[in-house]
Amino acid sequence: METAVLLIQCADQRGIVARVTDFVFRAGANITHSNQHSTGPNDGRFFMRLEFCFESPVDRPEFNASFAEIGAALNATWDIHYESDVPRMPIAVSAYDHCLVDLLYRVRHNELRAVVPCVISNHETMREYVEDLGIPFHHLPATKETRPEQERKLLEIIRDNSDFLVLARYMQILSGAFLDAYGKDIINIHHSFLPSFKGANPYRQAYERGVKLIGATAHYATTDLDEGPIIHQVVGPVSHRDNVETLRQKGRVLEQQALAEAVQAHIEHRVLRYENKTIVFR
Amino acid sequence: METAVLLIQCADQRGIVARVTDFVFRAGANITHSNQHSTGPNDGRFFMRLEFCFESPVDRPEFNASFAEIGAALNATWDIHYESDVPRMPIAVSAYDHCLVDLLYRVRHNELRAVVPCVISNHETMREYVEDLGIPFHHLPATKETRPEQERKLLEIIRDNSDFLVLARYMQILSGAFLDAYGKDIINIHHSFLPSFKGANPYRQAYERGVKLIGATAHYATTDLDEGPIIHQVVGPVSHRDNVETLRQKGRVLEQQALAEAVQAHIEHRVLRYENKTIVFR
Amino acid sequence: METAVLLIQCADQRGIVARVTDFVFRAGANITHSNQHSTGPNDGRFFMRLEFCFESPVDRPEFNASFAEIGAALNATWDIHYESDVPRMPIAVSAYDHCLVDLLYRVRHNELRAVVPCVISNHETMREYVEDLGIPFHHLPATKETRPEQERKLLEIIRDNSDFLVLARYMQILSGAFLDAYGKDIINIHHSFLPSFKGANPYRQAYERGVKLIGATAHYATTDLDEGPIIHQVVGPVSHRDNVETLRQKGRVLEQQALAEAVQAHIEHRVLRYENKTIVFR
Amino acid sequence: METAVLLIQCADQRGIVARVTDFVFRAGANITHSNQHSTGPNDGRFFMRLEFCFESPVDRPEFNASFAEIGAALNATWDIHYESDVPRMPIAVSAYDHCLVDLLYRVRHNELRAVVPCVISNHETMREYVEDLGIPFHHLPATKETRPEQERKLLEIIRDNSDFLVLARYMQILSGAFLDAYGKDIINIHHSFLPSFKGANPYRQAYERGVKLIGATAHYATTDLDEGPIIHQVVGPVSHRDNVETLRQKGRVLEQQALAEAVQAHIEHRVLRYENKTIVFR
Repeated sequence: METAVLLIQCADQRGIVARVTDFVFRAGANITHSNQHSTGPNDGRFFMRLEFCFESPVDRPEFNASFAEIGAALNATWDIHYESDVPRMPIAVSAYDHCLVDLLYRVRHNELRAVVPCVISNHETMREYVEDLGIPFHHLPATKETRPEQERKLLEIIRDNSDFLVLARYMQILSGAFLDAYGKDIINIHHSFLPSFKGANPYRQAYERGVKLIGATAHYATTDLDEGPIIHQVVGPVSHRDNVETLRQKGRVLEQQALAEAVQAHIEHRVLRYENKTIVFR
Repeated sequence: METAVLLIQCADQRGIVARVTDFVFRAGANITHSNQHSTGPNDGRFFMRLEFCFESPVDRPEFNASFAEIGAALNATWDIHYESDVPRMPIAVSAYDHCLVDLLYRVRHNELRAVVPCVISNHETMREYVEDLGIPFHHLPATKETRPEQERKLLEIIRDNSDFLVLARYMQILSGAFLDAYGKDIINIHHSFLPSFKGANPYRQAYERGVKLIGATAHYATTDLDEGPIIHQVVGPVSHRDNVETLRQKGRVLEQQALAEAVQAHIEHRVLRYENKTIVFR
Repeated sequence: METAVLLIQCADQRGIVARVTDFVFRAGANITHSNQHSTGPNDGRFFMRLEFCFESPVDRPEFNASFAEIGAALNATWDIHYESDVPRMPIAVSAYDHCLVDLLYRVRHNELRAVVPCVISNHETMREYVEDLGIPFHHLPATKETRPEQERKLLEIIRDNSDFLVLARYMQILSGAFLDAYGKDIINIHHSFLPSFKGANPYRQAYERGVKLIGATAHYATTDLDEGPIIHQVVGPVSHRDNVETLRQKGRVLEQQALAEAVQAHIEHRVLRYENKTIVFR
Repeated sequence: METAVLLIQCADQRGIVARVTDFVFRAGANITHSNQHSTGPNDGRFFMRLEFCFESPVDRPEFNASFAEIGAALNATWDIHYESDVPRMPIAVSAYDHCLVDLLYRVRHNELRAVVPCVISNHETMREYVEDLGIPFHHLPATKETRPEQERKLLEIIRDNSDFLVLARYMQILSGAFLDAYGKDIINIHHSFLPSFKGANPYRQAYERGVKLIGATAHYATTDLDEGPIIHQVVGPVSHRDNVETLRQKGRVLEQQALAEAVQAHIEHRVLRYENKTIVFR
């Protein structure tokens, strides 16, 4: 029995839920979970996540085409994700490996239902670890001069082989040209509670400001560095005994947690983007 | 424009969402929020919360009667709550006043959309505070011998004047006979993280066990003391410097928070009870 | 039996703990709690909190004078606080009353061991509430033009009648001249997780940025607005259902908690300031 | 420069801090951190942690012997730990590997300053992973009949080769005879927020009770199963969407965190046991 998730957003208008759920019902599917939110009656925006399972084999192109008519009538943005299409999620990483290690652990233990087609890094250090798990590893070193070339190679590697990209403490800034050319979602982890401590060395910034909590933020990457739509944030306590190094250690766990929960929400198609925000249907 | 919330649960079956949302649509209402959950395809149970607003004045008896047909066909348990019916929530309290004070503050500042028709206590201490706010205060002292008489009076006071009852650190045990006779929801706050530390003196129990976190649990009262369906739980850290008295002080804030959030969820009709659990659609 | 707390900081050097504790011992006092921290061996700074009780009546001037010799020898900054001197804590408030109400509740129930000699506000709204508790209320309205005059009056009211000042959502900016003239600690609550969302309307800023957690920060006021040493920070989750108004409601509880815990730490002489940070010995 | 930690507890009495710190000072050491707690003036118990560094090479036997005189005079229980003695921490594990993997990651990255001399398991599954890290792996299968034999072997393996033992989801119950014979601390992780859900299948118990938070508890193992002194507890939220399997996944992270923080506190000699509780000096 095939299961699917529909994500849809459009201007709020009367009867959307009835129309969409009736369509799903007539297509022979049973709704197992639904969430809906609208931002208000006037000029409001409508958001819905619908999870349903088909009672008999589904003709996907036909189902999608039929739904496209409704989508067009509502002037909606929408996507249908079939559960048997396991998302392909390449991971980019630099020197800090903890988020990569955590994501691969979760994938291996079926906590994250995804395939990691490859790992990309500007360092060689994780090659053995990654290849031992049977995952291709690509070393793409980068300097200021070679960045366009490196991005070209990165694009070549992941373009036809990924549904979204995860930057798991990847310390290279991706250009707007790359973001445009890739065109799919990119999830980044920033090691601070944004919008505090953007940019470099957030743990040093946190130490110097003397905050009593540190945090981590998982967000979609956009051309505005550290300004993309936030998916998940996690914080934890610090004390006067901490220095920059122990903040980094404590933060490591927060980064893993924020990134893993964001990736899981994305994989389960629980995240809708609008303006510079997200709606996460939990 | 009238707004209403439908809460419904029944055995899972095909087409429920489409059927219910279609009904609401045809009745001239626009769905503004919806949440749905089902526990699985076989022997599963279906739960839904639907919030909608009518575009023209609604004939409530007619609307309810029409929906009753669907409810009967689905063999469902359901309720429709109209937003203009502000819930009446009497509060019972004993010696500790912090939960009462907090709830009344929230009601007064429109954080909790409810009316408190009266406060009942087995102590006289809070009379002036309550009456100064213009709320009737009933002193119902209780001994083991007079409990049936006290419960009879309590029932008389609240039966026709309440939608649910809040026990805000009310340290009298209500009999099964009272619960049956009242027949509506009763929300209680227990000053521990249930199922730990049931019964008397949970802070002393927590102190003696040496736990590193204490908690508070808001739940529906049932005849099994401290065993009813849990609505919300909150915890906070303790240290070796704490004694029973400082645990009580730290716990006070947790109790207020757990009870207030549970009451708010109940008032907004976000809670569905089944078996001995709750589903809280946030 | 008199109890006292010594707070001391100085450049780290050998033998400080032994020297100070030996002094206390010889003075006939028994150390009941101690905390010490130093930031490192070279160029390090030494911080200590010592709580002790005298076994016989103490001659305070003599005790202080004797300790002053050690303090001078160590080139230290230090204070001795006697427990029988209950701190006097005037509270300034504007339109939002929740932090004031919470602090007064805690003082009344002996959770905060302090005296509130008066409440100051640029609004009249809280007069009755405050005066009913037997606390003098001063209405000091302020416009840009009258600010110097208002600060002069405020200073007159609290100068000889306070140990520190609490700004419990007091929405007037105090001038550097006032801070200098007052010369004692001022604790402020800012309704964001600093350094995020400084300045006006932090809940609106949080809403617009789409953060997934909001926070509150209690800090010492300095001439740099929202930049003073942080004492305590608290955060809580938000959802896509929240708007600016519900963020404000959720934040209210966080503000109360952050401010109350900061005030309690300050009252118990657990906070040491250095550079632009604090050490809080819990 | 050698650093050491002194942990001491005894009946409270006048002058302990002065006496101990004076001793340390005269021995040529500089106190860098200290924490002290006492449970009250009468019948009170005194606890202290002192961290100090020697300015010249220390003669350990002599230093210890000298301190022993003070310890005897105070009728105290005490230990001196020298930082250059890196603690040896064997780890026992069964089928679930997440706590083992997490501890080994932290050891490898110097977040936990310990040596893992070996890993013991009643399953073969983790052999390759452990041996690839250069750590000896011992497979000790157990049945009810062979338990005494298995414990005898375990004791042989770790007796002279460990400072304490970690049970990282080791699902075998160790006998009182083993605990006595080993005689050193054993840290266990229980996958619930104790004292809730002792015994088998805590996630199933949590699911069936319908709690809104799940937890994990790290504690010292004693002959009373799940009743030993608690070192650290962590909780996290659950929702109605969770089943026993997803609770297990969410709990996994909580278990890792609770165990790692407890092990770290133990390694840094921050934990003092008394009665059935702990004091953790953070």
